Amino acid sequence: MRKVKIYITLKEGVLDPQGKAVQHSLHSLEYTNVGEVRIGKYMEVMIEDKDNIEQQVEKMCDQLLANPVIEDYSYSIEEVV
Amino acid sequence: MRKVKIYITLKEGVLDPQGKAVQHSLHSLEYTNVGEVRIGKYMEVMIEDKDNIEQQVEKMCDQLLANPVIEDYSYSIEEVV
Repeated sequence: MRKVKIYITLKEGVLDPQGKAVQHSLHSLEYTNVGEVRIGKYMEVMIEDKDNIEQQVEKMCDQLLANPVIEDYSYSIEEVV
Repeated sequence: MRKVKIYITLKEGVLDPQGKAVQHSLHSLEYTNVGEVRIGKYMEVMIEDKDNIEQQVEKMCDQLLANPVIEDYSYSIEEVV
């Protein structure tokens, strides 16, 4: 079994209204030194060991987990005992 | 300026219906070796340098970014030139 950690972020240049809202809220809470906020997704997916697990993860991201038009993704794979 | 990367995950034991839905979708797409899926949030926050930046990040998470009742968070801080 492996734990795949997937990080999905909006591409640079894509507007992030949710991030803007969080930034404004932080400013209202007196965290005035906060600059840009970008919000993405984080997923942990357990996958049974097999060859080419990287290839499978990339296919899963392209097909379902991320929207390749506006999102980038990265991932790391950990062995789980 | 520092880039703070914040990872917010549901606590163990908290049901994750969104993760379950994604798991089912992956199974329908013939990724039958996929086990549990947990979905969290990922944020990148730019913060102006100051002392005790870790303390500020933790306060921001407790106050606004995460729900400490059902969510855990972790973060890493990167220098940005």
